[in-house]
Amino acid sequence: MKKVVLDLAVSLDGFIEGPNGETDWCILEDDMNFEGFLASIDTIFYGRVSYDIWGNFQPGSGASQIEQQLWKDVNSKHKVVFSSQSRDDDNAIFINSDITNKVKEIKEQGGKDIWLHGGAGLIKTFIELNLIDSYRLSVHPTVLGSGTPLFKDLKERIALTLVKTNIFKSGVVQLIYEPRK
Amino acid sequence: MKKVVLDLAVSLDGFIEGPNGETDWCILEDDMNFEGFLASIDTIFYGRVSYDIWGNFQPGSGASQIEQQLWKDVNSKHKVVFSSQSRDDDNAIFINSDITNKVKEIKEQGGKDIWLHGGAGLIKTFIELNLIDSYRLSVHPTVLGSGTPLFKDLKERIALTLVKTNIFKSGVVQLIYEPRK
Repeated sequence: MKKVVLDLAVSLDGFIEGPNGETDWCILEDDMNFEGFLASIDTIFYGRVSYDIWGNFQPGSGASQIEQQLWKDVNSKHKVVFSSQSRDDDNAIFINSDITNKVKEIKEQGGKDIWLHGGAGLIKTFIELNLIDSYRLSVHPTVLGSGTPLFKDLKERIALTLVKTNIFKSGVVQLIYEPRK
Repeated sequence: MKKVVLDLAVSLDGFIEGPNGETDWCILEDDMNFEGFLASIDTIFYGRVSYDIWGNFQPGSGASQIEQQLWKDVNSKHKVVFSSQSRDDDNAIFINSDITNKVKEIKEQGGKDIWLHGGAGLIKTFIELNLIDSYRLSVHPTVLGSGTPLFKDLKERIALTLVKTNIFKSGVVQLIYEPRK
């Protein structure tokens, strides 16, 4: 069965963006093996705003060959957009209701895993509906002080099991958890 | 020169207590080597409330020998209480003003390091005054959802350097940082 994987960068104080949407604190290192992560998924879940920005993003002609290849990989995935508005995109489906059951159906199709891309609203919905199977949080060595929190106003605690830890030269620590059964 | 060391448990979403002061999610493991940490410090900084609760805490007679020894160690340290109220305690000094300079004086006395014990208000003051030399955060595998945040409403970002990572069987990951120079 497919897993829903939340893979994202967080500041040490748990923000996914600064107060004005800043992501300039996010570090990308070659040994983070983002290609490896992309190879483990065949589907990407977007909210509407994220889809409009990133769903068919084309890097500029000045981008490196590695970057061009990354975006080619990303754009080859199945796309699922959680939105009441649809778009003209043969490679995307649009879901507007009954999220829990529709996600269950997609997971049961098997194949590779699903990257829960975001944004913040969709991630919050997935956390609250208990639909995330793997949290891959790259904790950055920066305290932002304010911004958009990854976890916000949850009604219940989430107990997790630490599965793996990856430490990078830049001081980023990737913590990989699964919800405790 | 002495270092001011913040050593504490945080939930994965960055809280040091639950919404009603809960710390039941904090895990203590033998291999966390708290004795080793205690051996590295000779001074403890308390806020007034924390001092009143913990400054001369005596474990009950039912406590294990290890626990008795731990508290004996803790109680043998020099104590500095940041408070406008003083108490009758020969082993404690009370500081009420000019924190930055008084902390500087204490650091210059040399010897072992200083444990910034808390509570939350004192920690916030120390973060804002840029008085912390080492952050030792034990990230617990629990999302609390709400509570007392370690970092709150900071006016400026804090850039840190990751110094060390310790991973424990329970899924606690201790991240040790120093402020970037």
